[in-house]
Amino acid sequence: MDDSNITRATHLTDAERIDWLRLIRSDNVGPRTFRSLLSHFGSARAALARLPDLARRGGAAREGRICTEEDARAELAACKRLDVSLVAPGEAGYPPRLATLDDAPPLLGVRGAVEALMRPMIAIVGSRNASGAGLKFAGQLAHDLSEAGFVVASGLARGIDQAAHRTSLNGGTVAMLAGGHDRIYPPEHEDLLAAILTSGAAISEMPLGHVPRARDFPRRNRLISGAALGVVVVEAAHRSGSLITARVAAEQGREVFAVPGSPLDPRAAGTNDLIKQGATLITEAADVIQAVEPIMERPIELREPDGNEPLDFDADANERARIIDLLGPTPISLDDLIRMTDASPSTVRVVLLELELAGRLERQGGGMVSLI
Amino acid sequence: MDDSNITRATHLTDAERIDWLRLIRSDNVGPRTFRSLLSHFGSARAALARLPDLARRGGAAREGRICTEEDARAELAACKRLDVSLVAPGEAGYPPRLATLDDAPPLLGVRGAVEALMRPMIAIVGSRNASGAGLKFAGQLAHDLSEAGFVVASGLARGIDQAAHRTSLNGGTVAMLAGGHDRIYPPEHEDLLAAILTSGAAISEMPLGHVPRARDFPRRNRLISGAALGVVVVEAAHRSGSLITARVAAEQGREVFAVPGSPLDPRAAGTNDLIKQGATLITEAADVIQAVEPIMERPIELREPDGNEPLDFDADANERARIIDLLGPTPISLDDLIRMTDASPSTVRVVLLELELAGRLERQGGGMVSLI
Repeated sequence: MDDSNITRATHLTDAERIDWLRLIRSDNVGPRTFRSLLSHFGSARAALARLPDLARRGGAAREGRICTEEDARAELAACKRLDVSLVAPGEAGYPPRLATLDDAPPLLGVRGAVEALMRPMIAIVGSRNASGAGLKFAGQLAHDLSEAGFVVASGLARGIDQAAHRTSLNGGTVAMLAGGHDRIYPPEHEDLLAAILTSGAAISEMPLGHVPRARDFPRRNRLISGAALGVVVVEAAHRSGSLITARVAAEQGREVFAVPGSPLDPRAAGTNDLIKQGATLITEAADVIQAVEPIMERPIELREPDGNEPLDFDADANERARIIDLLGPTPISLDDLIRMTDASPSTVRVVLLELELAGRLERQGGGMVSLI
Repeated sequence: MDDSNITRATHLTDAERIDWLRLIRSDNVGPRTFRSLLSHFGSARAALARLPDLARRGGAAREGRICTEEDARAELAACKRLDVSLVAPGEAGYPPRLATLDDAPPLLGVRGAVEALMRPMIAIVGSRNASGAGLKFAGQLAHDLSEAGFVVASGLARGIDQAAHRTSLNGGTVAMLAGGHDRIYPPEHEDLLAAILTSGAAISEMPLGHVPRARDFPRRNRLISGAALGVVVVEAAHRSGSLITARVAAEQGREVFAVPGSPLDPRAAGTNDLIKQGATLITEAADVIQAVEPIMERPIELREPDGNEPLDFDADANERARIIDLLGPTPISLDDLIRMTDASPSTVRVVLLELELAGRLERQGGGMVSLI
């Protein structure tokens, strides 16, 4: 089975790949900012040249670090030694559905049998401290999906993740990492990862050497759901991380599946809640397959590049101050912000971009922004 | 709380009650036939006079027994000794929602604190051989619904039924019987029934002395769901009786609630399937209450009596033969049957009524009929 029925292919030149890597590794440049900069300045190289100026206008407290060409070449060389390729959306090895996200990583480190990344994926997630029944079910489900030709994606964690990877090794399974490819978490899963890489793959958007911190896991979770047709939550207590993955999956337009459990079992409280909120109850692989088959028949529409809307980089001081006044720690939508000011949408976008590059703005999902 | 916001009240005279009892206790007269006869002949007494003739025209192999006035008076007297009242749809003590069914019993034997029958009911059903967790959940749910002012209806069986009745005794719970009021099944639940009758009630459409047979339980199950706002299925294996109750409940327009369980638990297979098919997943009483509150606000519309459509009791032999030819053991809908003949709808209805009174026709749910 192949899931690479995509509408647009990309191939970066070696020089472009260096520039892209420099831009995404520079301070305060996340995937969304990367995309804005690339679209407004036409190339990563042109954007790099403007970074210091934009950050200064955004009120940067100190000068942000810009990744040098030397550092970028060193990272590429280190990746090569570990057999990690850095691929862009639309390139071979970049999961096609992941490329459709607003915050798709501009460059993704992929390793192993990367052709597995082009096949239809189902994510399986759940508790680290799962019950025996949960582990058994996750293993059976992963096995059956794998036999049916799907690639099982998960997070290499203990518990449900591990059970799902283990039973789908032969068909190819994908580990999505929160840290760099050389900083495996948990460390005792290095052997599991090695087994995965034979027929499957691992992906990470983080630089080599990056030790995963708590906040990197939710960030990584958007890749798990985003690359997949759907996410199966096997066991999850109230307020567990898997529920955040499920919410993000729904925002991304991915199918959300949940495995039911007794109301008396706290480890099923989260999955039962998901079903109440509209997730599809599943009890076997066939339920998942039946739901995703119609989606697989539709072509995957890659995001169109942002239009080359002429940006107004000369917002006057009053406009800038008014926009900043409207911002605070409580997230507000870009649309609301535009409605509340007299400034043009273009001006608002530029001010936000500058604030972001100055490290003063945080972008959340759903077009929400807040001051840091 | 009261659920008797009904649109029409009835009160039978003593003489009418005798006639109604005679008609419904006569051979081959079920609730639907009773309703047709009453509507076409204007009174039970007029219908009784025509029964032998109609059955003969339907090709009765032997003369059906017509309940005598003496037998009816004897049954009423025996009921009185047991404190059972026989009430008609629209009379006090007849559950208002039950009266809305096409096949509502014309006379229902009610016993105990019959005012409980006028309050909003939730049915709780499930396996006789339930798990400990299932029993505990059913008991907790029944208790919480009872505390919230609902009457819990169930079937007095072992397992889930018993657990539901026991924890809702104080608030009033209703046992719906498959046999006569003096033929309790299972016999060891006589004590439970006695406890139920203090604040709750028992109902049966069967004559005193009737020992419940296997086929009486599905028949009784339509009363459990029909009298309630909704039915909660707590634990049910594949192909269990509770699933039939759930299907009938849905056909009756009642809410269907199911309690989820692990896919590895065969006793949850049926409830998980129900949720896949659209039943509402519930994990606590609040889920049920939230779903039924809007329904309670709407008035209960009793069925209008059938129109006094003039029936053509003189179908010619050819028409009659053609209609009978179209019937067989496979159920066919009345509408299809009418479409397939040249005879008028009225003629088709009369031929079916005659066949039924001759004991040759079976009426199923959803307007389906078949030859016996």
